Amino acid sequence: MSITFADIERANELISPHIVNTPVFSSSLLNTWLGHEIFFKAECLQTTGAFKLRGAMHFLSQLKAQGRLPKHIVANSSGNHAQAVAYAGAKFNVPVSIYSAANISQIKAAATRSYGAKLHTFDTRIEADAAVKSASDDNNTVWIPPFNHPYIIAGQGTASFEALKQVDNIDVIATPCGGGGLLSGTIVCAKAMNPNIEVIGAEPLEANDAAQSLRENRIISLSEPPKTLADGAATPSVGEHTFKILKKVDAFYEISEHDIVYWTQWLQHILKLHIEPTCAMTMQAVVEHINHIQAKELKKTPSRKRIMVIISGGNISQQSMQKVYSTDALAIRPSLDR
Amino acid sequence: MSITFADIERANELISPHIVNTPVFSSSLLNTWLGHEIFFKAECLQTTGAFKLRGAMHFLSQLKAQGRLPKHIVANSSGNHAQAVAYAGAKFNVPVSIYSAANISQIKAAATRSYGAKLHTFDTRIEADAAVKSASDDNNTVWIPPFNHPYIIAGQGTASFEALKQVDNIDVIATPCGGGGLLSGTIVCAKAMNPNIEVIGAEPLEANDAAQSLRENRIISLSEPPKTLADGAATPSVGEHTFKILKKVDAFYEISEHDIVYWTQWLQHILKLHIEPTCAMTMQAVVEHINHIQAKELKKTPSRKRIMVIISGGNISQQSMQKVYSTDALAIRPSLDR
Repeated sequence: MSITFADIERANELISPHIVNTPVFSSSLLNTWLGHEIFFKAECLQTTGAFKLRGAMHFLSQLKAQGRLPKHIVANSSGNHAQAVAYAGAKFNVPVSIYSAANISQIKAAATRSYGAKLHTFDTRIEADAAVKSASDDNNTVWIPPFNHPYIIAGQGTASFEALKQVDNIDVIATPCGGGGLLSGTIVCAKAMNPNIEVIGAEPLEANDAAQSLRENRIISLSEPPKTLADGAATPSVGEHTFKILKKVDAFYEISEHDIVYWTQWLQHILKLHIEPTCAMTMQAVVEHINHIQAKELKKTPSRKRIMVIISGGNISQQSMQKVYSTDALAIRPSLDR
Repeated sequence: MSITFADIERANELISPHIVNTPVFSSSLLNTWLGHEIFFKAECLQTTGAFKLRGAMHFLSQLKAQGRLPKHIVANSSGNHAQAVAYAGAKFNVPVSIYSAANISQIKAAATRSYGAKLHTFDTRIEADAAVKSASDDNNTVWIPPFNHPYIIAGQGTASFEALKQVDNIDVIATPCGGGGLLSGTIVCAKAMNPNIEVIGAEPLEANDAAQSLRENRIISLSEPPKTLADGAATPSVGEHTFKILKKVDAFYEISEHDIVYWTQWLQHILKLHIEPTCAMTMQAVVEHINHIQAKELKKTPSRKRIMVIISGGNISQQSMQKVYSTDALAIRPSLDR
């Protein structure tokens, strides 16, 4: 089952009454420094604090439209997907159970429960994944996966659909990549809206399963839980649905923890938004991509590009914020030749 | 020279083409937890990252309207006012010199310079203040003070003017208090728009010169530089113009450093905005004020209040962020009876 632009348009139609059409921000200072125009789609201002709501809301909207709303929803996640499914379930009056590893941050656990979901925790992510699978073995229960499903991919792709309607003539669109739902949805959407647009992805170097998979042309899983501040992209592997589309990405960058910290501080400072390390990371991919374009062009005055960055979320634990701000990244100003 | 509502309306007319009509945010989670409706006017999304631009822009707009734009502008500030004057001067094509203490944060110094201003630093704030005074002793030079001037007060008051146009039926409006420009402008504006509205102020306990001054009914200065994370409210004393109006405040709260940290973490988390400790502090005043109202009412079901909080800015150094996130405040959820 392949995903088309029509699926994303349909997803957008179904979910737009239930989600925020998030604003796009830019920084004249950053644009002056980099010599390009960068636009930021602020999905951190989405309900539940992340783009994940788009996928969950689309999944349930589809079931409702088909008269197949279940009696019970289950999902496995320690992060933004948990909150998204909890919120979406409450909107459609379907009880939700979330299965997560015990290391789920207190703040994400509290948010998930505050939307009315039951939270079951397990020692490891593998045990939580097994438990959700067995819980979904019930005719009245539906499992909403975090990324590897056509409904989820189409729903998450609506973030880029909206962004490209909000700002004209975008040359490059960039997103982070965890399981690949947002990036693959963006590839389908952006290429249909403008075949000349470049779609680029970013992944933590410390959790580079997607980069490895793209290089080897087969899905490779991380052998152990990665240590990265970009917890939204710590997914062990992409899925078969997302991988098929991810192969069409124009460029894919692996980002160091140092650069993740750097851009989290700078984007929070410049945009005045509470931006997750997972999406701040994407800005380093943008810088490397611009460098690459300029290196190819070899022009005295590089052409000015218009670049859209999807700021995927803003849910950050105190522990992560403490790590992000343990060194001073603001002492070195952003430029293309740091 | 007293300030009237007409002055604020006029200020709003003059500056609105040059500033951002910033959005108002709210959090359904926070409203559920507190049992009241809290609205946040996001002046952190103002150009230069703070409401201070409103005062500086109004000052220069007035001079321009009177055909009296100077050849040179000077100002003393180590913070948001420096950036505001630098930006406003550039907009009106008047060169700007900023005088500040050498402990100005690198990031604020860089932002001030990036708007084209010259920055002169001095060992102490007192020396910087003396230098700006002597520099302003020149017929072609105008000194734009940070708060104690009718144009500045009227300009800063437009933040509340806009906010009260954006949201109806506000019962309480709350702002931080440094030199008192924002709070006194808010008092003039809000009381004229609705005589029943309560205006409340917040100041760090560690820099409580305004509270002392209000108690003793004369302007009292801090004897030494205060140690507070709310650096925007570390002003040594209020001014004669602002103090005259501040006496009409309905309630004035002194906030501990602990509570400043608590609300900076929580407001950043809930609103997904990069909010300064100086304004996050105001939320503690709101909580204490609501407690006070409920203690007076003694109703089983307290009446639901609509409260506007002016989020004054979002310029925060790495050093401050590091301090804010050194402990976990997100482990304790906001409520009225913490």
